[in-house]
Amino acid sequence: MTPLDTLADIVGPKNLLRDPGDIAPYAVDWRGTWRGEPEAVLRPGSTAEVAEAVRRCAALGLAIVPAGGRTGLSGAAVPAANGPPSVVLSLERLNRIRDLDARDFSLVAEAGCVVQAVQQAAAEAGRLFPIQWGAQGTAQIGGMLSTNAGGIRTLRWGNARELVLGLEVVLPDGRVLDDLRRVRKDNSGYALRHLFIGGEGTLGIITAAALRLVPALRRIESAFVAVPSPDAALSLYGRIMECGAEVVGFELCARFCLQMAERHGVGLRMPLPLDSPWYVMVEIAAAHPSVPLREMLEETLAAALEGGEALDAVIAESEAQRAMIWKIREDYPDCARREGPAVGTDTAVPVSAVPAFVNTAERELKARWPEGRMAAIGHAGDGNIHLSLLAPAGWTDRAAWAERAGAMEALVNGIAVSLGGSFSAEHGIGQSKRHAMATHKNPVALDVMRSIKDALDPEGRMNPGKVLP
Amino acid sequence: MTPLDTLADIVGPKNLLRDPGDIAPYAVDWRGTWRGEPEAVLRPGSTAEVAEAVRRCAALGLAIVPAGGRTGLSGAAVPAANGPPSVVLSLERLNRIRDLDARDFSLVAEAGCVVQAVQQAAAEAGRLFPIQWGAQGTAQIGGMLSTNAGGIRTLRWGNARELVLGLEVVLPDGRVLDDLRRVRKDNSGYALRHLFIGGEGTLGIITAAALRLVPALRRIESAFVAVPSPDAALSLYGRIMECGAEVVGFELCARFCLQMAERHGVGLRMPLPLDSPWYVMVEIAAAHPSVPLREMLEETLAAALEGGEALDAVIAESEAQRAMIWKIREDYPDCARREGPAVGTDTAVPVSAVPAFVNTAERELKARWPEGRMAAIGHAGDGNIHLSLLAPAGWTDRAAWAERAGAMEALVNGIAVSLGGSFSAEHGIGQSKRHAMATHKNPVALDVMRSIKDALDPEGRMNPGKVLP
Repeated sequence: MTPLDTLADIVGPKNLLRDPGDIAPYAVDWRGTWRGEPEAVLRPGSTAEVAEAVRRCAALGLAIVPAGGRTGLSGAAVPAANGPPSVVLSLERLNRIRDLDARDFSLVAEAGCVVQAVQQAAAEAGRLFPIQWGAQGTAQIGGMLSTNAGGIRTLRWGNARELVLGLEVVLPDGRVLDDLRRVRKDNSGYALRHLFIGGEGTLGIITAAALRLVPALRRIESAFVAVPSPDAALSLYGRIMECGAEVVGFELCARFCLQMAERHGVGLRMPLPLDSPWYVMVEIAAAHPSVPLREMLEETLAAALEGGEALDAVIAESEAQRAMIWKIREDYPDCARREGPAVGTDTAVPVSAVPAFVNTAERELKARWPEGRMAAIGHAGDGNIHLSLLAPAGWTDRAAWAERAGAMEALVNGIAVSLGGSFSAEHGIGQSKRHAMATHKNPVALDVMRSIKDALDPEGRMNPGKVLP
Repeated sequence: MTPLDTLADIVGPKNLLRDPGDIAPYAVDWRGTWRGEPEAVLRPGSTAEVAEAVRRCAALGLAIVPAGGRTGLSGAAVPAANGPPSVVLSLERLNRIRDLDARDFSLVAEAGCVVQAVQQAAAEAGRLFPIQWGAQGTAQIGGMLSTNAGGIRTLRWGNARELVLGLEVVLPDGRVLDDLRRVRKDNSGYALRHLFIGGEGTLGIITAAALRLVPALRRIESAFVAVPSPDAALSLYGRIMECGAEVVGFELCARFCLQMAERHGVGLRMPLPLDSPWYVMVEIAAAHPSVPLREMLEETLAAALEGGEALDAVIAESEAQRAMIWKIREDYPDCARREGPAVGTDTAVPVSAVPAFVNTAERELKARWPEGRMAAIGHAGDGNIHLSLLAPAGWTDRAAWAERAGAMEALVNGIAVSLGGSFSAEHGIGQSKRHAMATHKNPVALDVMRSIKDALDPEGRMNPGKVLP
């Protein structure tokens, strides 16, 4: 029996994984990009067990890599390949919804709850948990918060951060910061929770959260709109924001992206012919069926057509048509992967800078990689456009394209930052963007972050090799 | 010439106040509760001057008390009476709106901008800066953010914190943290801005902020509703949240509060006879005149009347009637002051706990101070009820009532905390609630706050004697 085996005293033998076959799924991220071997995987079943495990790991000199649904795109939940000896601490067994209070528009969920389970629980109570993104069927609340996940609904309800009322966190020294309150106003000292939200497990382990709910949506209308340019899309955005409805989605897609979706998607049908260079998907919603959303959308689109901001538009006539619009958006990443090798980015700029961002990037990418194919799609209502550069049609060697076009990431990040934007909008830093942190992040901000990391985790035990360069 | 006079090199002689008469307004808070003499008052005219002043003060061994419009209720902007030698650093000359971008729904304002000036600039661009509270004609953006101000519109758009896209902060060592970006999604490391927002100037000095704007409200409807109890008000709240409109205000007022408003207010006229124990003021709004707010409100109130949640209700028939409803609310604090001595609180509980909170407090206050008169009024849609205990009619000696009833604060705070609430909802800690921090704040949270304070301000130079007990 090794010292490490004593961790079974805390979580039980079944929940201390030492067998390489059992560990394997936790030693690689879902895209297969990031690999790192932990000494073991721990699956505590309660906050107290998490706290005790953190203390014991400290005594054993082990670093801790917190993990949730492991759908992240930046390698934050996998041990760093050249990192110190570590365990993966999976929150998957902390999966209870501790409380749901419809009158309070809130619920309390443990970190291991799958996001979709929380959405469903809210829906059963006549409420909406208003975050939505592709991985929601696997991603867990703890990971959602540790990465401050975004998605297609942030335009109306904000990122994951904005949905939190209170947190329970196990600190690097094993103490529990119990601030799991459902109170909406609290100015009693520093807003500590915002350090752990988006902290990617480097400052502590989120074990539970009190989350905001909103009234269920009782009516919803979506449209698919052909627009001549990103600038026209921005004008349409201004119109729709002023239409009187709640705007819950505003996505901008380059034609090339929709062509890929058409080519590789299963059962996808484009609502309009793809003869326009750009398209917008827009959704408005209301908590009561009496809101005349249809008329609002029709009037807005009519004005946009007349103003030349829209070239063509279709409003979903049925729930099936509406679902199809959003399925195109949701299936897009998979379709793009099937098209071939790509180098991608996760940038955001001020909403009004989206046209300049897209146009500048297009010009510079074309100049440097004339053979590449730029794909631009994203949450334009948040200024969060995902740009990627695909290899020429028929190119299959991913490594060779990464080698050839890898520098596009720094180029696009640089354009975003020069426009007052971010090189990491919604996927976080993890391992994949530490180099970008070193290049693009304000050095004073980096210094302050390091001070805070040193203050909370002086031994550097929490998720080493992540976030800070 | 003393060493202190060299500060004039930075801000110019006119903006280094040494004369006791000039300093006096900065040495006391507006209610006259908190007094403390600074060595001088500095009025820098730029971020660079703020940074240089911070460095020079460090060299001179002076602490710094940042000040804005000085309308705060907790003494944060006045030097602590027994504190170290300090200067007040007033941001009042940093009062430019640096940028306003209507298409981006954002503006960039310096810390010394009066909140109302920002509201007006937004309105001129067809936008709304959606924070609203009584002191907005004097309060400044820097103070609004440093105290994370609330007000009557937080139900829809959040506290001041939620309106920030980026910050510029002068750190305790004089470096400038320039994160004045207008980007809506940014997951590049720790969310530092949330430490300075609500930090009451103890971690750095906010010098400018990029702020969110929203579409201007083109239609608005208000109602004044008699309800039998706080529980009925909560049911009404659920109904109005589901009516399909944006709910921008939901205030609960005990009859006694309205009676005081009627007695002492100038030109106030109650929309309904005061024969109900509780009243609600509700406001819904839309960004476009086509939203049938009137019908929504009528239907909601009709259902509430039928369900017994409302006893009587009046919808404002004109802008003048609507303004009157909110003037009653806005003038209330002054009216209550004229009624006589009181001890007050600033608590919040989960929205669904408001009835239990009010009922428990009423019972316990009556048991202990049968002669006292409880006033309960507040932002019920946020769970933020301001409870106070007034002296019997005719009592004039404020000090004697404070002595006699002072313990009500701890009692009410304790009830709020026991219901998962906060003893400091929107006014902050400053000097006035440090004792409550010591009593009620989670000790682990306090420890983490102290670590952060030590990490960012190791010499304790920023606003000493505030926030942390």
